[in-house]
Amino acid sequence: MIRTRITDLFGIQYPIIQGGMIWCSGWQLASAVSNAGGLGLIGGGSMPPEVFRVHIQKCKVATNQPFGVNIPLLFVHADEQIKIAVEEGVKIIFTSAGSPKKYTAYLKEQGIKVVHVVANAVFARKSEEAGVDAVVAEGFEAGGHNGKEETTTMVLIPEVCAAVKIPVIAAGGIASGKAMLASFALGAEAVQVGSRFVTSEESSAHLNFKMKILDAQPGDTKLRMTKLVPVRLLKNAFDEQVEKLENQGATAEQLAELLGKGRSRKGMFEGDLVDGELEIGQVSALISAIKPAKLIVDELVEEFNHYRLYLANL
Amino acid sequence: MIRTRITDLFGIQYPIIQGGMIWCSGWQLASAVSNAGGLGLIGGGSMPPEVFRVHIQKCKVATNQPFGVNIPLLFVHADEQIKIAVEEGVKIIFTSAGSPKKYTAYLKEQGIKVVHVVANAVFARKSEEAGVDAVVAEGFEAGGHNGKEETTTMVLIPEVCAAVKIPVIAAGGIASGKAMLASFALGAEAVQVGSRFVTSEESSAHLNFKMKILDAQPGDTKLRMTKLVPVRLLKNAFDEQVEKLENQGATAEQLAELLGKGRSRKGMFEGDLVDGELEIGQVSALISAIKPAKLIVDELVEEFNHYRLYLANL
Repeated sequence: MIRTRITDLFGIQYPIIQGGMIWCSGWQLASAVSNAGGLGLIGGGSMPPEVFRVHIQKCKVATNQPFGVNIPLLFVHADEQIKIAVEEGVKIIFTSAGSPKKYTAYLKEQGIKVVHVVANAVFARKSEEAGVDAVVAEGFEAGGHNGKEETTTMVLIPEVCAAVKIPVIAAGGIASGKAMLASFALGAEAVQVGSRFVTSEESSAHLNFKMKILDAQPGDTKLRMTKLVPVRLLKNAFDEQVEKLENQGATAEQLAELLGKGRSRKGMFEGDLVDGELEIGQVSALISAIKPAKLIVDELVEEFNHYRLYLANL
Repeated sequence: MIRTRITDLFGIQYPIIQGGMIWCSGWQLASAVSNAGGLGLIGGGSMPPEVFRVHIQKCKVATNQPFGVNIPLLFVHADEQIKIAVEEGVKIIFTSAGSPKKYTAYLKEQGIKVVHVVANAVFARKSEEAGVDAVVAEGFEAGGHNGKEETTTMVLIPEVCAAVKIPVIAAGGIASGKAMLASFALGAEAVQVGSRFVTSEESSAHLNFKMKILDAQPGDTKLRMTKLVPVRLLKNAFDEQVEKLENQGATAEQLAELLGKGRSRKGMFEGDLVDGELEIGQVSALISAIKPAKLIVDELVEEFNHYRLYLANL
């Protein structure tokens, strides 16, 4: 038992949140993490509305513990997903990639807990003003979409903690109990773990993608499109194309065209490691095995507890 | 008292090392940090050989505690500085920006403790093989010169700890006892603090530069020249020139010419905030006061001790 404002907010046993990620986190993963005492999130960003509804319905059957959904607000189906989540009685919604002002008041009226994902202190404050219950502060090392300031988790967490009174969930570079403890030392009251759950047994990422993550070495991910919509990718032939276009000074439209061809589905869900887009964090270099989600949660908690006692007695 | 292999190695009270930085860390700062129970380092990288010798001599008078020097190996005066440090009986040498093979064996023969600064696990292992006593692992968020992999402190420290058996000193993003505790949670046995000591009373940085650091906001530093010799700079007119040249696809020579005009001296030592180069870490956004070095050390230790007990009892 590790009690913080976040465990109280969601009514969960451990302050461990599984990031709601495209192509990787359906109802199987979300329910497994929730059943293990953390908070599982269904990643709406890669789901058509009716698929999203089915995942929520199956998750309700698979767990009687709290779970949530993540909805990227710039996603074309965001409006419909918000509607579906409310209809299906989802109690916890994480929003990202958009303005926290858009839905927060409405969702709070429905009795839903709302968390917004930010990459800087200014947006954390805006989220607090919009009425969210907590923020996820995601550092430069995180996989997938990211902020333009390039602020790392080590610096971002104290910045966001100083900017808001609501609890802060740390994300970016966290795949172990040690990194979870580091995040708490910096002021976080929970962690959001992405990359490590991508490689869990219950993740819907393609096995090719999972194996590629296990093989990743330090320096094998890179933040691309830093001037448009920064996104951290694992290096491969597709990533090289992105880099080449960027170096040629490509326009947003040219890059959008390259990215728009179902590349993330192709890479992460269909396992095309050459032409697919592979979103993953820097911490992939530290991940070495595919494990059940429950074991990942247990290992995080055990290591966290071991090292906080070690540090206390140093 | 916080005992680790690093405090034992150097015979110091606290596992806090003041980074040996160009234009900021002369004998006044190094001796103040050593007298406060940490390890002060004279930053050789901006000193002609005879100035370097005078700083060592003055430091020996100003403290009877262990202190060291930092020598960037690519610096034109590196050979002479190594010679002077040995002649003057310096007991601790940190080397950076070059091969750890070059001087380590020789220095070890002289009974000198040697530490090499790295930004990735491969160089950490090479340093260990070369016989160094410890490594500084410096993350993407650190000020000044940096690695090409862009690995952040949160990810780098566990990577380096897994790669070597010698103790690891964490650097990059560390300006508080909380960040120091986070580094220890990740496996470090000491921290190297740069930016916060730049703003200390004893730092030889120009007051204009110190005040500019206190004003820095999140996102105000940027890693420049990422394809040549990455360096983290505070945004100003000079930095805009660097960015513009980079965006135009400037050659290494063109950038070297822009940088070669005494820019760091002009900015950091002479206080020219427009045309000078200002090397500082992301964590500058979290620094809010000029304080004596002893108070900085005391605050780091007090906060570290406070939060490790807090975490133990969570």
